[in-house]
Amino acid sequence: MRTEVAIIGAGPAGLLLSHLLSLEGIDSVVLETRTREYVEARIRAGILESSTVELLDAVGLGDRLREEGDEHRGIYLRWPGERHHLDFVDLAGRSVWVYGQTEVTKDLGRAREEAGQEFYYGVSDTAVHDLTTDRPYVTFRSAEGEEVRLDADVIAGCDGSFGPSRGAVPDAVKRTWERTYPYSWLGILADVAPSTDELIYAWHPNGFALHSMRSETVSRLYLQVAPGEDIAEWPDDRIWDELAVRLGHGQDGWELTPGPITDKSVLPMRSYVMEPMRYGRLFLAGDAAHIVPPTGAKGLNLAVADVALLAPALTAMLRKNNTALADAYSDTALRRVWRCTHFSWWMTTMLHTSGDPFDARLQLSQLRWVAGSEAGATGLAENYAGLPIGM
Amino acid sequence: MRTEVAIIGAGPAGLLLSHLLSLEGIDSVVLETRTREYVEARIRAGILESSTVELLDAVGLGDRLREEGDEHRGIYLRWPGERHHLDFVDLAGRSVWVYGQTEVTKDLGRAREEAGQEFYYGVSDTAVHDLTTDRPYVTFRSAEGEEVRLDADVIAGCDGSFGPSRGAVPDAVKRTWERTYPYSWLGILADVAPSTDELIYAWHPNGFALHSMRSETVSRLYLQVAPGEDIAEWPDDRIWDELAVRLGHGQDGWELTPGPITDKSVLPMRSYVMEPMRYGRLFLAGDAAHIVPPTGAKGLNLAVADVALLAPALTAMLRKNNTALADAYSDTALRRVWRCTHFSWWMTTMLHTSGDPFDARLQLSQLRWVAGSEAGATGLAENYAGLPIGM
Repeated sequence: MRTEVAIIGAGPAGLLLSHLLSLEGIDSVVLETRTREYVEARIRAGILESSTVELLDAVGLGDRLREEGDEHRGIYLRWPGERHHLDFVDLAGRSVWVYGQTEVTKDLGRAREEAGQEFYYGVSDTAVHDLTTDRPYVTFRSAEGEEVRLDADVIAGCDGSFGPSRGAVPDAVKRTWERTYPYSWLGILADVAPSTDELIYAWHPNGFALHSMRSETVSRLYLQVAPGEDIAEWPDDRIWDELAVRLGHGQDGWELTPGPITDKSVLPMRSYVMEPMRYGRLFLAGDAAHIVPPTGAKGLNLAVADVALLAPALTAMLRKNNTALADAYSDTALRRVWRCTHFSWWMTTMLHTSGDPFDARLQLSQLRWVAGSEAGATGLAENYAGLPIGM
Repeated sequence: MRTEVAIIGAGPAGLLLSHLLSLEGIDSVVLETRTREYVEARIRAGILESSTVELLDAVGLGDRLREEGDEHRGIYLRWPGERHHLDFVDLAGRSVWVYGQTEVTKDLGRAREEAGQEFYYGVSDTAVHDLTTDRPYVTFRSAEGEEVRLDADVIAGCDGSFGPSRGAVPDAVKRTWERTYPYSWLGILADVAPSTDELIYAWHPNGFALHSMRSETVSRLYLQVAPGEDIAEWPDDRIWDELAVRLGHGQDGWELTPGPITDKSVLPMRSYVMEPMRYGRLFLAGDAAHIVPPTGAKGLNLAVADVALLAPALTAMLRKNNTALADAYSDTALRRVWRCTHFSWWMTTMLHTSGDPFDARLQLSQLRWVAGSEAGATGLAENYAGLPIGM
């Protein structure tokens, strides 16, 4: 079997790449170890940067987002006794949109299906070969158990932290940076209207809390917990009680309304970057090359930004035999990756308690400055709302 | 012996306080364990914020500063391959002045002497008593060996980290925060014209370096070294060689000119804050209450800002029996103290290498953002150039 671009991974990065390539008339085949139902149901990020929304709009994927998504002008920052709103539109000229990654993935899956995209879900034993030649190929076992060889001009590794692409870059070629944070998030989905119009990021001596949402009827909330926290220690009542404390229930008349919890999970917090994001004919995008802790809402947006660079680079390479953009891809993408890696680290370390009392005072003085200084607030806003694609 | 305000410490905080009080007709006596020659010769900070300069001007202490000091519009930030100028005047509307703390101390000493200020240099065994009564007093042994009791309405502790004032606040009343950084500065004074018109803050894989200056003919430079570094390991040639590497000698045509080193010392890097800054009739100002690492050039300016609040507070208390400002002194001063403590920590941790490769990449991505984003640059500028007094 042969295609122009073999795409490993049917998450948002892989699906968006297949979509952008097909708009240029470039064929691709998408491989995914999970089932389509699993991919479309797994709960991930929910905040889209302006530039992500603009890109999805520009390629015909913005209709449901515009209808069902919710545009937010900014976020709330709170700590005991204080509550501040940062208006990203006023500060940085850009808004963000609340629209779940699951919804983006469904929209992409539907669009690709309608366009006749070739997919292989439920594959196993995926491996990449001959990456430094101009005839690379992928081998895998199909869901039906058939051994398949997929020849391609280029392989796109959009297969996250656990896929084979990252590992296919030899150690002698790559450098990696990694940090594991000494806390996790306990995340819940609840069938209750959000108690806030925009996200609340809360610093509290007990630990960080975040009130997010997925829709008018579904709330998403998080609590900082110890790494490897046992979820059994957190019955629903304890979760709501602790959220109420950390988010400031009852202060300034604000109330947190609890509701039925439909999903509960513990998320590790980790930073990871691999350089370069290309090895021969293998190009990495999204989580395959970098992981950020979720505090800055950057993971999905970074994946989209990678793909927004990669699609024109592959188009120029395959259609015009011009490799300038492909050769620049890794360096260009990594500039944004490191900006977002720093921002995600900064938001994370500013908001999560470490147990060190001096850290706590530094965090509060930083939060006061961010909320009180136009430069401080603009710095957060321009990073959170996101840089234009290509920056 | 009796006075209205007993001031312990004849550094810039104590001398400036005696000066501001005397302008209001309030008597003070200044005690100092060191000799006047020692105090006026000890090498300390050299950067004055706008608000410090304005205050010194306003109280008749700005003439020599204006004549011999050097106004700087900003600083340079550099790291291998890049060099950026941050213009504080454009970014934040305020400049800074290069004028050594030794010079400020000399100007103050001369002004106080001319005004007939009562000083006791070379005292020992200083102790404070009856702080929670309205008749506190200080005991000390004069340079001549005489036991002296100094009664006062108020005692001002301007005696730095090692003076008796800090320790006189009972543990049950105070809270302290402290951090020791895992590096020190090797600082030199050299009889050579500065190789730069404004300060250069340099990040380098070998460690931080700073090119500062005292005058047109005296340069002050620093190298990040290990804590407790043995100065004997650093002959002059090694110091200049390492400064040349870290500061980027030879890049973009910039050259570092070495010269005779006249002073060489290792400075520890430490943050310390004590709350409250008042206990009964004892008021703390400057290093007695807080220490910052020197990276943000805040130590002297914070001491001046404390005294600028304390003088009117004591005036209202002693002349109008109005204690509102005195009662607010600690909280008001601590707002600025924590802002500067955070800024000094931020500058320090952004610029000093820790040995962790992920930290290095975070630092570089932060530096790129600070140099490239108006919000990032303004954030540094407004903190470095300093907030107005009272903020």
